[in-house]
Amino acid sequence: MKVNGKPYRTIWIHPQNPKIVQIIDQRKLPFKFVVEDLVDAASAEKAISDMLVRGAGLIGATAGYGMYLAALNVNATQYKKELGEAGELLKKSRPTAVNLQWAVDRQLEVIEKCETYEACVEATLLMANQIADEDALMCRKLGEHGFNIIEKISRERKGKTVNILTHCNAGWLAFVDYGSATSPIYQAHDAGIDVHIWVDETRPRNQGARLTAWELLEHGVPHTVIPDNAGGHLMQHGLVDLVITGADRVTKAGDAANKIGTYLKALAAKDNNIPFYIALPSSTFDWAIGDGIREIPIEQRDGREVKYMMGYKDKKEQDFLIMPEGSNVANYGFDVTPARLIEGLITERGICEASEAGIRNLFPDKNIG
Amino acid sequence: MKVNGKPYRTIWIHPQNPKIVQIIDQRKLPFKFVVEDLVDAASAEKAISDMLVRGAGLIGATAGYGMYLAALNVNATQYKKELGEAGELLKKSRPTAVNLQWAVDRQLEVIEKCETYEACVEATLLMANQIADEDALMCRKLGEHGFNIIEKISRERKGKTVNILTHCNAGWLAFVDYGSATSPIYQAHDAGIDVHIWVDETRPRNQGARLTAWELLEHGVPHTVIPDNAGGHLMQHGLVDLVITGADRVTKAGDAANKIGTYLKALAAKDNNIPFYIALPSSTFDWAIGDGIREIPIEQRDGREVKYMMGYKDKKEQDFLIMPEGSNVANYGFDVTPARLIEGLITERGICEASEAGIRNLFPDKNIG
Repeated sequence: MKVNGKPYRTIWIHPQNPKIVQIIDQRKLPFKFVVEDLVDAASAEKAISDMLVRGAGLIGATAGYGMYLAALNVNATQYKKELGEAGELLKKSRPTAVNLQWAVDRQLEVIEKCETYEACVEATLLMANQIADEDALMCRKLGEHGFNIIEKISRERKGKTVNILTHCNAGWLAFVDYGSATSPIYQAHDAGIDVHIWVDETRPRNQGARLTAWELLEHGVPHTVIPDNAGGHLMQHGLVDLVITGADRVTKAGDAANKIGTYLKALAAKDNNIPFYIALPSSTFDWAIGDGIREIPIEQRDGREVKYMMGYKDKKEQDFLIMPEGSNVANYGFDVTPARLIEGLITERGICEASEAGIRNLFPDKNIG
Repeated sequence: MKVNGKPYRTIWIHPQNPKIVQIIDQRKLPFKFVVEDLVDAASAEKAISDMLVRGAGLIGATAGYGMYLAALNVNATQYKKELGEAGELLKKSRPTAVNLQWAVDRQLEVIEKCETYEACVEATLLMANQIADEDALMCRKLGEHGFNIIEKISRERKGKTVNILTHCNAGWLAFVDYGSATSPIYQAHDAGIDVHIWVDETRPRNQGARLTAWELLEHGVPHTVIPDNAGGHLMQHGLVDLVITGADRVTKAGDAANKIGTYLKALAAKDNNIPFYIALPSSTFDWAIGDGIREIPIEQRDGREVKYMMGYKDKKEQDFLIMPEGSNVANYGFDVTPARLIEGLITERGICEASEAGIRNLFPDKNIG
């Protein structure tokens, strides 16, 4: 997607030096656009653990490139052993990120088959590129299916603006390109469909106001940031035609865990007959579980994220106290939207009903428990 | 209610000097507890217009005392004329506050009947006290009815903690004492019932995190501040037994306009079979209208409130940027919760169903259009 008119991915090989990988330091967005160089496995590991990069797709891609950078820097005489160790370290950079384990394992398989060190360096670069390309392609395909929904609404509205509400950041910043929830939006916008996005601020970490708004602004997509409280009112007054969010985990029954607050928007969409879609790469399905509300554990995060807020003043990012220091806080990371509130699941294979039957029909080849 | 162990109202006569009225500068809460002196009508007018005081009940009481301060300072030979002018100025300090007009008019009626200047000073003090006392009494009575709901839930839970969620600040800071939504809570807590309050942060102005949390902390009521996004998750997991909010305007059909985001909590309460109540003095009813969603105009406020946030750092309150400067924002002040989602209306006369029949039954003497 574009930044200041120039196309970017979230991770790429340095144009002048193929031994350097570049990323955007997302912690500084939207206030500063800072590109960082990754020069070895340690810097990739740090980029993941310090959250310069975040989002399942991008974490996986960073791990893939991290293994390439590791290959560049190991001792050629014992590269397999050292790369095995580098892989273990990378996997620990964010223990719960499934894509991270998977990307490192793919690289380790490739490395295992190499016959020379030089071949190994080349093979890890190819695999890193492949992991990134696959992620971008999957988001693009998912977006093509979602595009059809937006195009249909646009036709029904005889070309009048299609207002789409989204929550949190399921944007290209969380993947390698396009994003999940944003991919249909970017494709509709680029095809000339008149779209306008309501961006939920997404307290307490404000990924909507900080990241989604920045993405859309840079790519030129009309949008308006709103407090998380506003969506219901907008829907009551016909100002929302469609809701699309991403997901962190979707059960085989179609229940979707996503950023805290998503459930409230799904309830409001249902109450006002507005279609509510979840966009997800199929790697987000958890084929083993059904009842999301009972079975998906919800992370409780540091209360500091609620009590303090990151803002920008005097040309620097600072944390400010926003409530009584002595009050308790709670900080649940996610909530679960039951399948009954979800109009459909937008995946790279197509759109299916949020139900076990719908999901089985689209993924007959998957080992659904 | 208590502040640092000492009982307070939100407005009172200076204990050593009856010619001074004192208020809390609520703009500085929760970071600093600053008491300000009002010495004349101009300082009362400024306290209202600059929002040192806010909330319908407290604005009315401040206007009442403002007329008393005016009486102290006018020219005794033409006091009726000058007090008429002072009243007009006070009424303009926040044009949409109904209680403000009403309090000034009550004082002007009293002044009109006075035969001497000295009698007028005394009469305006009595009337100012009466307006404040009536407000406190009304909140106390409303709270007694609401108390019964909490006590019943406590019994059903065999004394286990009653978890109550509230949104925005319908607390004693918005009235003279007790508050509306908080009055049942304070009375239950003071009676030894084990209550715990989930305090919605209430973006964008954070009245929950800043004011409700401060009130509850100072009075010693156990509470936890949560992002507005969290309530649905808590309700899904049995962590909320009751929701009580205030209202800015309730129609004769029982639709309730309240701080933006209230509707989303009412939807979640309904979806999880949790009773959702609105607590309101009967002066909040708008007897003339029925359909709240269609007929209540929703104020759009300055976008700066969304784009910047007030926080505390280096011992001072500061506004800091929290999103891209170039993005659009929208800032709707209120939303309307339809009567079908409301379990009941808690008023000073008792509790009624949120329906025209229920309201007519409790208020047979009102001229309902």
